[in-house]
Amino acid sequence: MYDKLALLTDLYQLTMMRGYIMAGLGDSETVFDLFYRRNPSGGGYAIACGLAQVIEYLGRLRFSQEEIDFLAKTEKFDGDFLEGLKNFKFTGDIFAVPEGSLVFPGEPILRVKAPLAQAQFIETAVLNIINHQSLIATKASRVCYAARGDKVLEFGLRRAQGPDAGVYGARAAMIGGCSATSNVLCAKIFEVPVSGTHAHSWIMSFPDELSAFRAYAKIYPDSCTLLVDTYDTIKSGVPNAITVFSEMRENGSLSGYGVRLDSGDFAYLSKIAREMLDNAGFYDAAISASSDLDEYIIRDLKQQGAKITLWGVGTRLITSQDCPSFGGVYKLAAKENAAGVLEPTIKLSENIEKITNPGVKKLVRLYDGTTKKIKADLITLDDETVSEDKNLTIFHPLAIWKKMTLKAKTFFTREPLIQVFKRGELVYKSPSVMDIREYCAAEKDTLWDEYKRLINPHIMPVDLSYKLWELKNNMINEIRGA
Amino acid sequence: MYDKLALLTDLYQLTMMRGYIMAGLGDSETVFDLFYRRNPSGGGYAIACGLAQVIEYLGRLRFSQEEIDFLAKTEKFDGDFLEGLKNFKFTGDIFAVPEGSLVFPGEPILRVKAPLAQAQFIETAVLNIINHQSLIATKASRVCYAARGDKVLEFGLRRAQGPDAGVYGARAAMIGGCSATSNVLCAKIFEVPVSGTHAHSWIMSFPDELSAFRAYAKIYPDSCTLLVDTYDTIKSGVPNAITVFSEMRENGSLSGYGVRLDSGDFAYLSKIAREMLDNAGFYDAAISASSDLDEYIIRDLKQQGAKITLWGVGTRLITSQDCPSFGGVYKLAAKENAAGVLEPTIKLSENIEKITNPGVKKLVRLYDGTTKKIKADLITLDDETVSEDKNLTIFHPLAIWKKMTLKAKTFFTREPLIQVFKRGELVYKSPSVMDIREYCAAEKDTLWDEYKRLINPHIMPVDLSYKLWELKNNMINEIRGA
Repeated sequence: MYDKLALLTDLYQLTMMRGYIMAGLGDSETVFDLFYRRNPSGGGYAIACGLAQVIEYLGRLRFSQEEIDFLAKTEKFDGDFLEGLKNFKFTGDIFAVPEGSLVFPGEPILRVKAPLAQAQFIETAVLNIINHQSLIATKASRVCYAARGDKVLEFGLRRAQGPDAGVYGARAAMIGGCSATSNVLCAKIFEVPVSGTHAHSWIMSFPDELSAFRAYAKIYPDSCTLLVDTYDTIKSGVPNAITVFSEMRENGSLSGYGVRLDSGDFAYLSKIAREMLDNAGFYDAAISASSDLDEYIIRDLKQQGAKITLWGVGTRLITSQDCPSFGGVYKLAAKENAAGVLEPTIKLSENIEKITNPGVKKLVRLYDGTTKKIKADLITLDDETVSEDKNLTIFHPLAIWKKMTLKAKTFFTREPLIQVFKRGELVYKSPSVMDIREYCAAEKDTLWDEYKRLINPHIMPVDLSYKLWELKNNMINEIRGA
Repeated sequence: MYDKLALLTDLYQLTMMRGYIMAGLGDSETVFDLFYRRNPSGGGYAIACGLAQVIEYLGRLRFSQEEIDFLAKTEKFDGDFLEGLKNFKFTGDIFAVPEGSLVFPGEPILRVKAPLAQAQFIETAVLNIINHQSLIATKASRVCYAARGDKVLEFGLRRAQGPDAGVYGARAAMIGGCSATSNVLCAKIFEVPVSGTHAHSWIMSFPDELSAFRAYAKIYPDSCTLLVDTYDTIKSGVPNAITVFSEMRENGSLSGYGVRLDSGDFAYLSKIAREMLDNAGFYDAAISASSDLDEYIIRDLKQQGAKITLWGVGTRLITSQDCPSFGGVYKLAAKENAAGVLEPTIKLSENIEKITNPGVKKLVRLYDGTTKKIKADLITLDDETVSEDKNLTIFHPLAIWKKMTLKAKTFFTREPLIQVFKRGELVYKSPSVMDIREYCAAEKDTLWDEYKRLINPHIMPVDLSYKLWELKNNMINEIRGA
């Protein structure tokens, strides 16, 4: 799908690229970090997602003659620049956390080292891909958390923000924990389970509800989920479903079956429906629900004892309704000086959280040795090492009196950033979506429940090594003092 | 772009299609309406958008062997059905309101008449396209309304929900009223103006802000908008910009120029920046702003006298942040009976607003003859006529005592639904995006300001003809009575 996307960018990336080349900076080595500032939906974490599509994008990134001709027509570019685009390709290094990884605000989740013209240019498309998929993977993980082990199905294609949002959103939703999607194209591309039953129009296309149910049961005896709310859930839908299930039982054709609620009060209706089904001996009939569901409603319905065990989640998952954007940014962290050495750079701001972390950095994750749960994340300079054999004191980068000491040999470390591109060559193979989903589930197991609370969760410490903290503060003082 | 999208659908469309064919209903003529229930963002209207892509989708809709092979692998479909897909194409009629049209809740904005198997199948993709673009066009019209004549630029690609959301979202934003987009691919495909300057990384790639500004001014003297907040807007950015503008003035190279604010308090900063620029004689330097803008913030900034005349709007426009989904639905309205005659159908619901309007319907828009503003919309059966030469009394479909009489010859009517497909043949040519944008501006002129208020606007009456109202109530009573 990610073919011919060279122009999927903001105009200023191209005007800056040209400017860098004219200013003699186009080939200067630079390092950019991709990170985000706040967890979506006020949660305690995010799930990084979209790397496979970034890889596809970078691997195919070339300017076709047709694209160059279009740029020429805009009259914003000179012939030399346009000629140079013919040979443009990505030749840099990329490190990134694997898809499905837990990530926290401020930490580098993707790091690019490349000539300035290239590193700058790829910003928009890379952000577009990572921001979208990380958003939906995170939302899905919240919805699945609320469902507490029940299966969650992704049903959102019709309300997604365009075809890609449907297809790649469903991919991300699977990674975040959904069990299947209704999206056939996503299932084809990414080899994930696909699921679905029928709509109200099915019922309305037959003379009455009962004959519609009978027709469905005849054709799909093995996956007979009947939608019961077209006319009246309790007076008509469930009784008619029970009639059909009884007929199937007599014929011996009853296997995977149940009812789907799509309107009304799910706590009330599911309890009544459960009782009616149980009284008719259909103890194993599943009750599924769909219609404007999200993590908050599922949590409340479960708390009220709703008898639903399968959740079809559409609009509010595929758009991340309460937080439809992931604030990933891409900032210059280091640039080559006249002597050819990478020097740290910093962007200041009135807003403290918008000040960037300078230098070439990496991420070190600290785990408790016994529980295997994450204790904290530490951003360090790339050449630092953190020893598991010594006491480690970390501190809040602003409230520096807030300290925590991890005793030697009671913790272990992991460095989540892995190399993906090396001098433009792909050196990493993306796992299958179902394998990423499994990895993501393992990642979520490294988080205490307190960090997964839907609102006001515990905040994961993301600290800076002393060396990085000192570098940052010195640079701020130098600029402010000047 | 909309190529090979046959599988961009929910699985249940395919399982239902197979079911209809097996039940002998696949070729039954049916009518489906696409409509929505609530205006996005609590506004007073929506802008219909996306028809050109629906046309593209339907025109190209075929199943390739590869797609059929994938469906075979799912083991949910029999060989006859899969064989039949090889000849599948859309052969029906479509009526729709032109893109850029004002629309209101409950009215048919697209009407499909086709054999059931086809009409059902196309639901998901058609909704996906129309829902997305109508959402963003509506949001853009709100943002532009708040900007009260100032230019609004669409800058959202990096935060859009995937590539399509960026490209087609930018298209919709242009239709809704934006003056340009930063999205190069959108500009190429849809021939719309593209715009942009530079990022913080430009500034940080030079030894200091002043040399970065100088380099930019040298390369882009005709469109020299300088980003002034990298280090300190008032102490550094604006003074350095003034230095560069002065140098350009001396060289005679000063034409289109200005500064861009990207953080801090825009009301405060823009007033100070304006004063500084004016004091230096740069009265025509534009002040633009970007960073988390939307219609509410722009309205408030203008109210507080912010000296900004150009608005770069990103995330909150391209995702429609406060309302990221458009609730378009697609419902069966009529089906062929045994005698081959189209009979109205209805879907009931506990929720009054979810009860559908039965029958083959059209939309009649009623305008005041003097002001040319819309008085009300009337949904009628397709064979009804509304005479401009007689008094017309319309009434609220639920609160039926709420009546309005339009005197003969004081109003005129228009029927917005136009034919797009006739027996599968395209009989309509989509205008260019810039022409649709102009049409949309004219449409917005038919609406009093009261309907455009951002919150709690006046509600446009969308009434039913007496004949349709009677049909609907009789059908409800018949089902409820049974």
